[in-house]
Amino acid sequence: MIINQELIGYAAGALTTASFLPQAIMTIKTKDTSALSLGMYSLFTLGVLCWLIYGVQLANYAIIFPNAITLVLAGCILSYKIYHSFSKKP
Amino acid sequence: MIINQELIGYAAGALTTASFLPQAIMTIKTKDTSALSLGMYSLFTLGVLCWLIYGVQLANYAIIFPNAITLVLAGCILSYKIYHSFSKKP
Repeated sequence: MIINQELIGYAAGALTTASFLPQAIMTIKTKDTSALSLGMYSLFTLGVLCWLIYGVQLANYAIIFPNAITLVLAGCILSYKIYHSFSKKP
Repeated sequence: MIINQELIGYAAGALTTASFLPQAIMTIKTKDTSALSLGMYSLFTLGVLCWLIYGVQLANYAIIFPNAITLVLAGCILSYKIYHSFSKKP
């Protein structure tokens, strides 16, 4: 049961980290950020940065590694959203 | 320093969980899911479900509680995305 528990934990981390890849690719390709919430990506990117700091403080690579990847992907999406929010004046 | 570490951890969890609220509200209000990636929300919702199962297996409420909230919010966004992906035939 312990192996299953660990597997579920790894699967959870891999899935939630990997999930931001298709969104980042889609956003970069389409440049469409209209339906993306600026509030979500601001809070989320800040949250992932906190996870990264927390991981560094604990010297825990299982926290550092996925959050470093997620930070790059979410930060990329956030940058596009900010750029399009302030460059377009509807 | 331990208090600061714990605070960073709690802030990280609160921010990444709370971040899905503005996106869910925006998606419900505007019904616009065009820029949202179906791949992202499918993988992410499945990942959060894994985190929830992992939390239940460990009987760890610090994992269960935020992931239960995130599952409802991400699941709600995913439902809208699926509904709009398959109801509209462009």
